[in-house]
Amino acid sequence: MSLVCIIGSGLMGSAMSVPAVDNGHQVNLVGTPLDRHIIESLRQNGVHPTLPCKLPENMGLFQFEQLEQALSGAELIICGVSSFGVDWFAREVLPQLPSAVPLINVTKGLREAEPGVLQSFPQYFSAIRPDMAFAAIGGPCTSYELAERRQTLVYFCSEKTSTAEFARKLLQTNYYHIVVTDDVIGLECSVAMKNAYAMGVSLAIGMSEKENEESAGKKTGVRQNQLISGAHDGRLHYNPQAALFGQSCVEMRRLVRLLGGNGDLAGGIPGAGDLYVTVFGGRTRRLGTLLGKGLSYAEVKKKLAGVTLEAVAVIETVSAALRHRAAKNGLDLHQFPLLMHMESLLKGNTGKKLPWKQFGE
Amino acid sequence: MSLVCIIGSGLMGSAMSVPAVDNGHQVNLVGTPLDRHIIESLRQNGVHPTLPCKLPENMGLFQFEQLEQALSGAELIICGVSSFGVDWFAREVLPQLPSAVPLINVTKGLREAEPGVLQSFPQYFSAIRPDMAFAAIGGPCTSYELAERRQTLVYFCSEKTSTAEFARKLLQTNYYHIVVTDDVIGLECSVAMKNAYAMGVSLAIGMSEKENEESAGKKTGVRQNQLISGAHDGRLHYNPQAALFGQSCVEMRRLVRLLGGNGDLAGGIPGAGDLYVTVFGGRTRRLGTLLGKGLSYAEVKKKLAGVTLEAVAVIETVSAALRHRAAKNGLDLHQFPLLMHMESLLKGNTGKKLPWKQFGE
Repeated sequence: MSLVCIIGSGLMGSAMSVPAVDNGHQVNLVGTPLDRHIIESLRQNGVHPTLPCKLPENMGLFQFEQLEQALSGAELIICGVSSFGVDWFAREVLPQLPSAVPLINVTKGLREAEPGVLQSFPQYFSAIRPDMAFAAIGGPCTSYELAERRQTLVYFCSEKTSTAEFARKLLQTNYYHIVVTDDVIGLECSVAMKNAYAMGVSLAIGMSEKENEESAGKKTGVRQNQLISGAHDGRLHYNPQAALFGQSCVEMRRLVRLLGGNGDLAGGIPGAGDLYVTVFGGRTRRLGTLLGKGLSYAEVKKKLAGVTLEAVAVIETVSAALRHRAAKNGLDLHQFPLLMHMESLLKGNTGKKLPWKQFGE
Repeated sequence: MSLVCIIGSGLMGSAMSVPAVDNGHQVNLVGTPLDRHIIESLRQNGVHPTLPCKLPENMGLFQFEQLEQALSGAELIICGVSSFGVDWFAREVLPQLPSAVPLINVTKGLREAEPGVLQSFPQYFSAIRPDMAFAAIGGPCTSYELAERRQTLVYFCSEKTSTAEFARKLLQTNYYHIVVTDDVIGLECSVAMKNAYAMGVSLAIGMSEKENEESAGKKTGVRQNQLISGAHDGRLHYNPQAALFGQSCVEMRRLVRLLGGNGDLAGGIPGAGDLYVTVFGGRTRRLGTLLGKGLSYAEVKKKLAGVTLEAVAVIETVSAALRHRAAKNGLDLHQFPLLMHMESLLKGNTGKKLPWKQFGE
């Protein structure tokens, strides 16, 4: 039995307690200053305000000011904050952590370390605390399904695989399957970009819904018994979605290679697989669908008020970095036509047509 | 204007008439001996018995015995037969075709040319008619959506790209987008295998449906407002599907590389993208779902009586070839755990658990 300390009690941070406790470990769950109500709720009745299933009992529950106490004796730290909290974590939490305890990060994203230079979060953290060992998690895993113990396959990465191997030993179960890789940038880039590209794929869903609304009542020639079971709208528009899905994988692979990763992960479980599950998950799909229907980003923001959109942040960060590289090092932005299209929609270019002729290898 | 002769008037063969006619070409559509009723129906009232939308008027409609007449003056031949008709096509049709006219193939599949040696259909045809030029089509394209002129992105391949380029010039439209590649085995292997792996991904759908049925009425802790819009069953089981989707891409890439292709297409538009659309399309999804629910293959065959299952044929062919290579050349079959699992289900091993621990890079 080891002590695992999870910092950040949002959806994914909290869900990580499930495989840890199932493996017989003690878990200390620490809320960030934004998580006070979550820790309170868990203390009162064991219910997480947003995670729709029961969490393990007998966890240590700590508010942020109790961090030192929660860390005492920990053998593994899990950073459970979202990408919007990562700078806060780097500034306020990292300096307080013990040297000898490895940290594994569930946060998904990329940051622009300096103009044109994209950095994964493990690289970011290592630059601040070179004395510590960092790993990160990527792959198709929704928090509620992990908490419900559904079969799940993820990757743990670290530059020295021993860190990821150590975390795997502590966390793998008969439903939480873990592959270890040293391709940190391949994994972290795929994982960050699938959020962005889930918006891209969802554009086709919006286009299709709009077309359905416009043709409602018209005879389409599609016979009822030929509708695809499982089609979200009962109609047959999968070619455009599939094209955007494939193009997303192509661009993720190009970006991974540009940043020095090997590219295979982008077209495998952490890229293509995670994109698949993200297209079917809530927020980003909704964002892309509304933009695909022709709403302006300003209108979409009003509709989705209060929703944090990691996809928007990653599209803006990565396209800014690529533009910088294009201006400075001659990078050809035509390698990323879907990303550039998404950036343009977020800049307010409503109703712009997809650059179909630029797609493909 | 050119004359395009399509041989095989099934779903995809017939749908190819749409971009051809939209480009101003004359199309001669020739039924196989199994297509007599289709040609009759089109002659009588312009309605295709299975394709749920109108085909272009003014096509030449020919029964198979009129092949010579239909070919007269053709500048491009499209082979529109399914993989079950490909040996017939090679035997009965290929010898009758003129040397100088290139042929592009919509048929998806791989064949075992000799024990352990997998061959694409363009390679098969070239071996019989080395005087002719062959190309092939792959990528996410359902026939009905092509016939409805939905945005579609496909790849044309040929060993000398000039053949595929020629076909592209004749067939590309503002909705039918074509990328040319010389990676024939990369494209054809991806395209064949996505049919197989669509069954693999669908196993998770069946597992999930079974679990839903078993837990119907039980309190699951999932709140109504947290259901994913678009989830086929209204519940949240995407982690296992996404894992199998990613694993499928990994195995497709390994197979492409084993056969000498470059592997990128497997994780891009023709592999991952086409798998995406195939998982949502009828027959193969149904096959995998029923097997995933725990039915034996014998029971599934009864339920799906009369349905042609290209997925079964490709799983059997490819796993036989890989087994031969394993026995003869020491190929490690653990590189293809999902394929081997699917083969085992088709051999009657009902209820076998997925080999999760073997998945991943």
